[in-house]
Amino acid sequence: MKQIIFSITALIALGTTTVMAKATVAKTDPLIDAAKKAGLAPIPADKATLMKLIDNPKNPVTDAKVALGKKLYFDPRLSKSGLISCNTCHNLATGGVDGVPAAIGHHWTANPHHLNSPTVYNAVFMSKQFWDGRSPDLEDQAQGPMQAAPEMAITKEMAVERISSMPAYVKEFKSVYGDDKVTFKKIADTIGAFERTLVTPAPFDKFLQGDATALTDAQKEGLKVFIDKGCASCHTGVGIGGGMQPFPVAKPYKYANIGDFKGDKNGMVKAPTLRNITETAPYFHNGAVWSLAEAIKIMGETQLGTELTDKEVASIKTFLTSLTGEKPKIVYPQLPAVTDKTPKPVAK
Amino acid sequence: MKQIIFSITALIALGTTTVMAKATVAKTDPLIDAAKKAGLAPIPADKATLMKLIDNPKNPVTDAKVALGKKLYFDPRLSKSGLISCNTCHNLATGGVDGVPAAIGHHWTANPHHLNSPTVYNAVFMSKQFWDGRSPDLEDQAQGPMQAAPEMAITKEMAVERISSMPAYVKEFKSVYGDDKVTFKKIADTIGAFERTLVTPAPFDKFLQGDATALTDAQKEGLKVFIDKGCASCHTGVGIGGGMQPFPVAKPYKYANIGDFKGDKNGMVKAPTLRNITETAPYFHNGAVWSLAEAIKIMGETQLGTELTDKEVASIKTFLTSLTGEKPKIVYPQLPAVTDKTPKPVAK
Repeated sequence: MKQIIFSITALIALGTTTVMAKATVAKTDPLIDAAKKAGLAPIPADKATLMKLIDNPKNPVTDAKVALGKKLYFDPRLSKSGLISCNTCHNLATGGVDGVPAAIGHHWTANPHHLNSPTVYNAVFMSKQFWDGRSPDLEDQAQGPMQAAPEMAITKEMAVERISSMPAYVKEFKSVYGDDKVTFKKIADTIGAFERTLVTPAPFDKFLQGDATALTDAQKEGLKVFIDKGCASCHTGVGIGGGMQPFPVAKPYKYANIGDFKGDKNGMVKAPTLRNITETAPYFHNGAVWSLAEAIKIMGETQLGTELTDKEVASIKTFLTSLTGEKPKIVYPQLPAVTDKTPKPVAK
Repeated sequence: MKQIIFSITALIALGTTTVMAKATVAKTDPLIDAAKKAGLAPIPADKATLMKLIDNPKNPVTDAKVALGKKLYFDPRLSKSGLISCNTCHNLATGGVDGVPAAIGHHWTANPHHLNSPTVYNAVFMSKQFWDGRSPDLEDQAQGPMQAAPEMAITKEMAVERISSMPAYVKEFKSVYGDDKVTFKKIADTIGAFERTLVTPAPFDKFLQGDATALTDAQKEGLKVFIDKGCASCHTGVGIGGGMQPFPVAKPYKYANIGDFKGDKNGMVKAPTLRNITETAPYFHNGAVWSLAEAIKIMGETQLGTELTDKEVASIKTFLTSLTGEKPKIVYPQLPAVTDKTPKPVAK
């Protein structure tokens, strides 16, 4: 493998012939076509195509909106206590998650259903939001945790009053929306627009785009197992997951007793993205499993009705490392200062 | 005022004569000398001088150490719960503070003495750390909140075990310290080195450096009152505060009944920095006062034994806006992922 990379590097040094040489290497690997056939799709490398894919015509993604959305995303004043921001549970430093089994929010309240915070990275590629898919998009989703009593616990009114009390925010809302009336919907829409940009291209995307050298031999081996065993039937598309699926299918989920989540009214549960899965432990809707190997094994049993060997599990796990992507560079924001009019934080 | 600025701008366009012209303007303002005489000092504009001022010979500030320190500063895995980082209470997005009266930490526990989180910005200029000055420097200070039960609540051992379990961290410690043994002291020292860089040059610094146009007439008016009334006797030096002072002096502090803090064994309390004071409400050691105007009025009474008029209060407040500085640009870090060996978060 190393040798192939080195030869290609050498070829690159020769100039334009490289592209052809590289393309030739790529076309010789039938695994790329097999992966595409299985429904796996790349994050577009072309910026215009990507922008089209992540955009929401009802809430267009613009630079100014994203800049404002970033501020709101990191702003703890959007919680009742003034201490919890979107980033608390969907921490952009740690794979877009909080790294605990069940979310802990306002007044140290654990999620009443023992639900694990899903990653915000690549959430734009999910067909629905929340584990039970009850929300159609990120703009709608963002309204939930702000208001949820065990999360940020703020009322729509207090959120609007807090933001409206800071002139620098009002000015920015005006420049984004054309008028300076801050509404709760605008706050959530703006956060949603920022979240749409949180996509993380990974080696696997390069592979699907034709660069057969983007994956190691071991990762390719794992990809084969991943496809052969049927993992890609749920973990598919650009999101490598994100659709609603029955769970469990073949066998009961061994940690079903933790929490009381049963999926949507049809028992469907959102298949989480596998992008950055190496960074988002613990796993499953109830965060019951810390080991990625164990999570893969359980998925084989519950969803595919198959007992994966340790070797197969290890191989799939190796493939999954190719889904760990490059995170957007985020400059930590400077937030407007509170004023005498800003409603005070309420700790209880 | 505007006219003066415009003339100088016009002069700048003429070339080198400008510097002289500007210097002339500066020298004509005796307030600069008066401010210096009162003990007020600027954050050095010259990088080498600044580095010397913020450095700790026992823990030299290096780029690599600061980069690692930034990661640790933002890392919630340094708390028992995995949810609280240094940045939770000293939020670099909101003036280096949490914006609540008394710090709230592990398991939503409020600071038992009802103490307010001081800003981390410019903390390097404080002669002592903590409200009672019990810590000599930032490296020593950083050890406290990590271990304090109502703050991050982690043991030294668990902190070391968490960090040591992530190979990317161990590698970085090795490159900074020459060996890969992570210790609690090294963790705190590294955070301290990062914190030393968190300084925020403000218009007032430019003024002290000779640019008489850096302050508005109203700010200069306020500075005069600030000096005349004696505020600069405690809020002095580069930190515009940071020394240990008796509190209260002339009259009892009207909110003394909130919390039980009495200062150090001699009743001395650290005079907080006034840098970025417009961003760090609520005020005083117990965060009892939200209005900066009220805080100024109280200081006049308790410390200076003088009843400041509303006009004087407003004027001082206007001067204080010139202390709101430019924050260092912080790229939000990407933290190493936990491994199977990482001790799990403990929520209770």
